Amino acid sequence: MSGVEAKVKVALVGCGYWGPNLARNFHQLPDAELVACCDLDLETLRQMEALYPARVTPDFDAILSDPEIEAVALATPVGTHYELARQLLLAGKHLLVEKPLTTSSAEAEELISLARQKERVLMVGHVFEYNPAVLKIKDLIDDGQIGEVYYLYSNRVNLGRVQSDINALWSIAPHDISIALFLLEQMPTQVSARGAAYLNGRVEDVVFVTMFFPSDVMAHVQASWLDPSKVRRMTVVGSEKMIIYDDVASEGKVKIYDKGVYRKGDAIYGEFQYRIHSGDINIPKINMSEPLRNECAHFVECVRSGATPRTDGENGLRVVRVLEAAQRSLSGGGETVRLAP
Amino acid sequence: MSGVEAKVKVALVGCGYWGPNLARNFHQLPDAELVACCDLDLETLRQMEALYPARVTPDFDAILSDPEIEAVALATPVGTHYELARQLLLAGKHLLVEKPLTTSSAEAEELISLARQKERVLMVGHVFEYNPAVLKIKDLIDDGQIGEVYYLYSNRVNLGRVQSDINALWSIAPHDISIALFLLEQMPTQVSARGAAYLNGRVEDVVFVTMFFPSDVMAHVQASWLDPSKVRRMTVVGSEKMIIYDDVASEGKVKIYDKGVYRKGDAIYGEFQYRIHSGDINIPKINMSEPLRNECAHFVECVRSGATPRTDGENGLRVVRVLEAAQRSLSGGGETVRLAP
Amino acid sequence: MSGVEAKVKVALVGCGYWGPNLARNFHQLPDAELVACCDLDLETLRQMEALYPARVTPDFDAILSDPEIEAVALATPVGTHYELARQLLLAGKHLLVEKPLTTSSAEAEELISLARQKERVLMVGHVFEYNPAVLKIKDLIDDGQIGEVYYLYSNRVNLGRVQSDINALWSIAPHDISIALFLLEQMPTQVSARGAAYLNGRVEDVVFVTMFFPSDVMAHVQASWLDPSKVRRMTVVGSEKMIIYDDVASEGKVKIYDKGVYRKGDAIYGEFQYRIHSGDINIPKINMSEPLRNECAHFVECVRSGATPRTDGENGLRVVRVLEAAQRSLSGGGETVRLAP
Amino acid sequence: MSGVEAKVKVALVGCGYWGPNLARNFHQLPDAELVACCDLDLETLRQMEALYPARVTPDFDAILSDPEIEAVALATPVGTHYELARQLLLAGKHLLVEKPLTTSSAEAEELISLARQKERVLMVGHVFEYNPAVLKIKDLIDDGQIGEVYYLYSNRVNLGRVQSDINALWSIAPHDISIALFLLEQMPTQVSARGAAYLNGRVEDVVFVTMFFPSDVMAHVQASWLDPSKVRRMTVVGSEKMIIYDDVASEGKVKIYDKGVYRKGDAIYGEFQYRIHSGDINIPKINMSEPLRNECAHFVECVRSGATPRTDGENGLRVVRVLEAAQRSLSGGGETVRLAP
Repeated sequence: MSGVEAKVKVALVGCGYWGPNLARNFHQLPDAELVACCDLDLETLRQMEALYPARVTPDFDAILSDPEIEAVALATPVGTHYELARQLLLAGKHLLVEKPLTTSSAEAEELISLARQKERVLMVGHVFEYNPAVLKIKDLIDDGQIGEVYYLYSNRVNLGRVQSDINALWSIAPHDISIALFLLEQMPTQVSARGAAYLNGRVEDVVFVTMFFPSDVMAHVQASWLDPSKVRRMTVVGSEKMIIYDDVASEGKVKIYDKGVYRKGDAIYGEFQYRIHSGDINIPKINMSEPLRNECAHFVECVRSGATPRTDGENGLRVVRVLEAAQRSLSGGGETVRLAP
Repeated sequence: MSGVEAKVKVALVGCGYWGPNLARNFHQLPDAELVACCDLDLETLRQMEALYPARVTPDFDAILSDPEIEAVALATPVGTHYELARQLLLAGKHLLVEKPLTTSSAEAEELISLARQKERVLMVGHVFEYNPAVLKIKDLIDDGQIGEVYYLYSNRVNLGRVQSDINALWSIAPHDISIALFLLEQMPTQVSARGAAYLNGRVEDVVFVTMFFPSDVMAHVQASWLDPSKVRRMTVVGSEKMIIYDDVASEGKVKIYDKGVYRKGDAIYGEFQYRIHSGDINIPKINMSEPLRNECAHFVECVRSGATPRTDGENGLRVVRVLEAAQRSLSGGGETVRLAP
Repeated sequence: MSGVEAKVKVALVGCGYWGPNLARNFHQLPDAELVACCDLDLETLRQMEALYPARVTPDFDAILSDPEIEAVALATPVGTHYELARQLLLAGKHLLVEKPLTTSSAEAEELISLARQKERVLMVGHVFEYNPAVLKIKDLIDDGQIGEVYYLYSNRVNLGRVQSDINALWSIAPHDISIALFLLEQMPTQVSARGAAYLNGRVEDVVFVTMFFPSDVMAHVQASWLDPSKVRRMTVVGSEKMIIYDDVASEGKVKIYDKGVYRKGDAIYGEFQYRIHSGDINIPKINMSEPLRNECAHFVECVRSGATPRTDGENGLRVVRVLEAAQRSLSGGGETVRLAP
Repeated sequence: MSGVEAKVKVALVGCGYWGPNLARNFHQLPDAELVACCDLDLETLRQMEALYPARVTPDFDAILSDPEIEAVALATPVGTHYELARQLLLAGKHLLVEKPLTTSSAEAEELISLARQKERVLMVGHVFEYNPAVLKIKDLIDDGQIGEVYYLYSNRVNLGRVQSDINALWSIAPHDISIALFLLEQMPTQVSARGAAYLNGRVEDVVFVTMFFPSDVMAHVQASWLDPSKVRRMTVVGSEKMIIYDDVASEGKVKIYDKGVYRKGDAIYGEFQYRIHSGDINIPKINMSEPLRNECAHFVECVRSGATPRTDGENGLRVVRVLEAAQRSLSGGGETVRLAP
């Protein structure tokens, strides 16, 4: 019972861009206690200190060696995930790693294996899998309401958060890949990607990714930090209904269109005729709790119960495998990369 | 002077989907006279007869042999363009062919050669090159107002006009390819495309095309007739400003964003820092004349003056060459296809 | 049977702003024939002549005395309605008069009486009562789906169609008053109006009207031709659901909100507590036929059958009585004007 | 210098709906310190205690008698403002009172007089006068860019925050009245209001207010807590340009329309002809700081410097006088109420 159990003591490592959101949520969760914050930047640490009753330190070793800290949320740059996560697991900490899990599937596999060996929770922060709107879409698909899923595509573009170390594929597209794999419950068999690097000539500011799945479903992702408008939208086209999920819509994030195309009778001279059906649009009420709070609460619960998180290491590995394939395609000029089953 | 010159006598061949729009415009133009309509479908002919004081016939030969007809607008299915256009040019008619010009570049080249030989106007109906909004964007680019063009992408999706004979690439994307070539004044050197055929398993309902141009500009096109919402939008991202052209916007089709990303000072440890600038948005007043009327008027003027149309056969050929390359990529599983300069 | 019955021969009197829409519809209706057009402006007549196979004349008497003309659509300035309608009825013509019917209820009553006496159809062009979206809202109210109607308000503003002879109340608000009376099936008991005349100092460019109905329903109308944006929207607030009807929406003109406020339990110290319910939003598919075509077809049908039109003279009179009351309030500085039951 | 001066010690009285926003801002301001929170509800106090290092008390006298407290932000129900403010001023506290200042102008005048006598700051929380978007519109008007202001109207509707003690006029419209008086720098000479009470039959859920100003400017306000959509919009129509201020717009809250209607030449037979001009739309970049933070900072600065706040007691009195007049009209069935100059 939450009333008598001790709170899970959590440390945050990496208090930059996304870290403060993790801090706020762990601070507010009734079953968790934010006990420490670690960052290399002293000014950042001062800000965290002003906001939360947690000790702060620039020394990562102090986190590793602190026996009070049971669990760590790791929100450092992607390139550091593997090494820091490895040390944290070796030190016996439960771990929530920001997405993407690592920069290679080999690293991800090693972390998974290490977590299993140390009997620690390894969870990845694929926050959209805790988003009530995404869960609603998953329900609609699972209920068969939209019929057979034909294809889906997402547009995640904005002006901002330009990065120098990783490109838009690794920075932005993990969200869309995670959602696609979650909704379709499959891995793609083919991935291709094209993009271009305008700002510094090395990391792509804009990337287009195409994935094909065994069931003939296609998924397409547009990711960019160099775009005039802020768009966070995914469209799912099914044989019976179609869905638009607009994360920045003011009035209902999920729209369900009773729309479809049907064959009229038999083929005439080998040609089918089509009838277009366009019915009601429904905007279901979705009780929007904060996705990150749901994610953090799930992590805390898994730490307590020992349960496997919904976005566990395997889940994170799948996303990394798709990113790896997309990166290979991107570097190879758009060639189609096949994924082993 | 238009007052004393005789009107150009135009026949329409193909009165189905798009043809009636051509008929209406040629009927209304002061310098043209719609004298004949030809279609295989008798009901369609009856409708044309009720609307316009033009003779109607299901017999294509009657058009060919009618000496009064100086010019023909050809709006039949794409697969028939080459053969009908060839006969019309041989019969000495000036010709406006709906887009795309032909189904292969070889056919297009033959028509161009034939038109030159017969000294007849050969024009292609790339109507967006006569659209005041597109012309405005061209001006903004040419004036240097948006700086260096980085990339552009367009979304042209809808539910409707499902075709059995040609896919979404050939049916929808010619618009976007035509606009891209017009704005950039270049041919792409690489083209790739991916898509999927859900309704009849043979022709792609949804297609994604990527083009790379010599100046490092990238263009991406999404075309689909299987989508819940009607979108006709193109985004142009430049180094100084960015443009969104939304053809279905109710309040201003072109939005100019004073937005950009700039480097801050010198690189630190090889890494540049970036500053995001986000200023005013301007929605310029554009005097919207009907693009098709502009196109038809330009055709009539070229027939009269013998001038080369802005969207002449060469223009149409360039679009067909890109479509051919994209089709080869699509059929080849997304491989990058290089275009000869 | 329409096949054997002769077409109803219709003349149009007044071919200015709205007249051409009437001409087009009567020309296209299978059961009507547009036989004549009358207007004082010769250029306007020339344009009508070019478009339709109808004789044209600037001479109103020629319409009156033409025995072939059974029915007349009258679309002249409001100030002329009464006199022209009177002569047309006396000449035995069936009559469709543009809204508002007259500039006073006395005149309207006289026309009603005259039409009855001459056994001729007198119909008013309250076109929104033939609009499928408005009919849908009426159905929703009649079915009890939105519960008790609390209040409704409409915004009908735009930049354009500035008039010198009548103010925004008489020019624009008749639409909203007609819709309100139609939806509520009641006459208001109190009317007040405020407005201001900026452009010429005499006729109000912007007007706000408030109406109270016996059932405690309130209706508010904002009408203006001096406004930056084009808005045609009506909101209906009920005890169970709420409706927004946006006539310029691109995706569904009618939105039904499952929203409401309910009392929680008993009053505490005389104060009730409230619970806000916010459920799904539904955008029903409405088959949108052109309202004016529906209106014209209904007129033709009534002429043929002798049936009383849905928007008959009495209907037109009711709207004029509300306009009269609102005008009295407007001229009197906003005083509340009571209408006799 | 802020570095050496002691922070202004502020207490918050009333921690319900709006109070927490005041608490957050005073806590975060570098020149202020939130030292105490007072509320009758113990659960509310517990929440404040968890969030801020301020002492909490249900005892108002403890605030009055605490010599450390220099300034108080009063965010209790409107009906209590006068009595609590009076005691606080008598106790020598500087005072920021939430809007509206009081429920009558007599009370407001007494507070003003008391504050003058006690030489204490009396400021009213008309937060929109600290909103950068409103300040931008004020600049545009003052610069003469929109020409002569013709009229303005605002729509502030929503579903929510239903009140039992005060109606929508006193709860919602103070914002719009405050903005109107601020932009026009005048008091209205005539006020009328209509509304209706659906939920409890006593307090109006929806209210329409019309004000006329000496310069012939008209202002109209629609306020409701019983509406399907959340709208916070004000339109300002000038002779040269028009402005729409949409507080919930995602892309630019202020839109400037280069639109207007101009007379063409001289009057013909006493009738003027009009030309409609419709040019560019501009969405200026506005640096959006939090309005409430600006307000709180201004209060702290006035406490320190002894300067008169921009929204001082006189400002608050003017709004109360308009509210009083509107309430009299509302209670009197919509009669026009004249305000003494």
